[in-house]
Amino acid sequence: MALSGSKMYMDLEKARELCTGILVCSGVPEADASTVVDNLIQGDLRGLGSHGISRLYAYTERIKDGYTNAKPDIRVVNESPATLLIDGDNGLGAVIGTKAMDLCIEKAKISGMASCAVRNGNHYGIAAYYAMKALPHDMIGIALTNAASTMAPWGSITPYFGTNPFCFAIPAEKRRPIVLDCATSVVARGKIILAGIENKSIPEGWAIDKSGRPTTNTSDALKGSVLPFGGYKGSGIAMVIDILCAMLSGATFGTHVGDFYNNSQKMQNLGFYFSAISIKSFLSPADFKAGIDQMIDEIKGSEKAYGVEEIFVPGEIEFNNEAVNRKRGIEIGPGVLKDLNTLRQRYGININPEDYVKEG
Amino acid sequence: MALSGSKMYMDLEKARELCTGILVCSGVPEADASTVVDNLIQGDLRGLGSHGISRLYAYTERIKDGYTNAKPDIRVVNESPATLLIDGDNGLGAVIGTKAMDLCIEKAKISGMASCAVRNGNHYGIAAYYAMKALPHDMIGIALTNAASTMAPWGSITPYFGTNPFCFAIPAEKRRPIVLDCATSVVARGKIILAGIENKSIPEGWAIDKSGRPTTNTSDALKGSVLPFGGYKGSGIAMVIDILCAMLSGATFGTHVGDFYNNSQKMQNLGFYFSAISIKSFLSPADFKAGIDQMIDEIKGSEKAYGVEEIFVPGEIEFNNEAVNRKRGIEIGPGVLKDLNTLRQRYGININPEDYVKEG
Repeated sequence: MALSGSKMYMDLEKARELCTGILVCSGVPEADASTVVDNLIQGDLRGLGSHGISRLYAYTERIKDGYTNAKPDIRVVNESPATLLIDGDNGLGAVIGTKAMDLCIEKAKISGMASCAVRNGNHYGIAAYYAMKALPHDMIGIALTNAASTMAPWGSITPYFGTNPFCFAIPAEKRRPIVLDCATSVVARGKIILAGIENKSIPEGWAIDKSGRPTTNTSDALKGSVLPFGGYKGSGIAMVIDILCAMLSGATFGTHVGDFYNNSQKMQNLGFYFSAISIKSFLSPADFKAGIDQMIDEIKGSEKAYGVEEIFVPGEIEFNNEAVNRKRGIEIGPGVLKDLNTLRQRYGININPEDYVKEG
Repeated sequence: MALSGSKMYMDLEKARELCTGILVCSGVPEADASTVVDNLIQGDLRGLGSHGISRLYAYTERIKDGYTNAKPDIRVVNESPATLLIDGDNGLGAVIGTKAMDLCIEKAKISGMASCAVRNGNHYGIAAYYAMKALPHDMIGIALTNAASTMAPWGSITPYFGTNPFCFAIPAEKRRPIVLDCATSVVARGKIILAGIENKSIPEGWAIDKSGRPTTNTSDALKGSVLPFGGYKGSGIAMVIDILCAMLSGATFGTHVGDFYNNSQKMQNLGFYFSAISIKSFLSPADFKAGIDQMIDEIKGSEKAYGVEEIFVPGEIEFNNEAVNRKRGIEIGPGVLKDLNTLRQRYGININPEDYVKEG
């Protein structure tokens, strides 16, 4: 086990093999299991551990308890030349999201662009996973999802919206793609949970307590509400995302969304919304991508604010994380390690994660 | 003239008649003049005087000096079932934007949704004007534009992006539509200009000075840079908007955009991006709109934060403004009144705006 204070990293391919095996033993078809694990590991690689294999335990619990469908019948319910409505049949979010985005890209090849709304979805990991599928096709990808209610609308103290994250992925030529992947809350709720575990306070402006007062206490914050980024503007964006994801698809919205952890007796019935925009239906992808390179160069070359060492464009920090983590392995905490051990023992899988963890 | 401290309101129909006459005398065809004035007056009605008839003088100056084309040949340059690329031929923004959004809606009727990128555009007034065109068709409307460079990317102190505003318009049934229309800066730059005229300071967090330090001094702020809303997230959204508007259309981006006021010897060559999403290509518009009503009711009925009298959903304040201003007339400052007088004398128009202004 890890020395106190040091970090643990797990071998990438062994993590993939073990997690896929666990999902297969949970009843998920192998190809789907591999998709879900690819999505989770992508989260870990990009430095978003809260959306990585730390979620696997809850995924399997929800399948075991019958609240997520291991073998969903994902169906196109309605379509037109540029739109799709998909029923995810309560499958794992990454399985549904991958199929939906792939269909969206196929339609965009013919119609120039396409959008897809999804109902009966579940937690789908990092949004960038879906939006970035558009990049090899010289398309711009957009991925939105709603989420369980944790954020008060501007002016209110009662959680209504989820942290409803959004992602835009835009291809470049020599530079790496632009990938803007953000929650609509000031910070992800997971950061408040983590600060609580570490007995730290949080900065004012992240959250309010149950009575609506600003708080720096994590326990009060978690009983209260996270705040939207950018005040009323972020609150408005969260509302638009809830509408595109849930109201266009017939999924649940606002406080009606099932919670991922605390309320697992309820289906989540999340909504997703994806778009793929084919650049060549507007102008030459080569010109477009050269322009993106130029824009990135100009922004990164502009005068830095006091104390700033480097100006980063959206997605750049995550690509840097990925380059490091591909070599070093993915960071894994003692809790997640314990979960993986529990699961591999439950299913009799002959990979002991502790054998593939090193400290750093 | 107005008493010091009191406000002046101009009769709506007379303002429309006078402004249309001025544009026609500037060489703009009557139907186009009427569109532009409708857009500007809509800005005034919604309480956004900075995007109202206060812009007319600059519009006519740019036409007179040959930097905006009074009779543009607006052409579809590229199209597919769900996309359009339009060259605005340097016409007035509202003329181009109206045509582009109308074509986008027509395509969405057939393909379920459509998007349109526009190059060679100019200042187009309030974005809501275009996005809201989708509403009577039971569609969701989206309108984006880039703008002259006044905002530093996150981490930088040099203006690069414009305040690149975005608008989403979403129909409801009994409730008024959701209309989220925001700049990506903390506040519109016009508010800093206005504070300067009134010798007021601005709150910290709105802008930085030339050296990148936070400032509350309007003159230093205007020489420096406005800040994106929500920190790096708003900065990322401004970048995505610049890309959708300019990089997809071949318009200018970043610091290459021509300024509206200070640099009128240069064409603006702004880019716009519009989308229309037909609700019925997903599910029943009646169900969708009933859901929006429910969401609005739930949000407005949720517990209010301390000091909040009413929770407003996006667009609600502007609809309230419009209801008042339709009866009272549109607010007009002494500077705008003087500009209108100059223009009506230049063109020999027999409407003296001072005869149709009342104090309130």
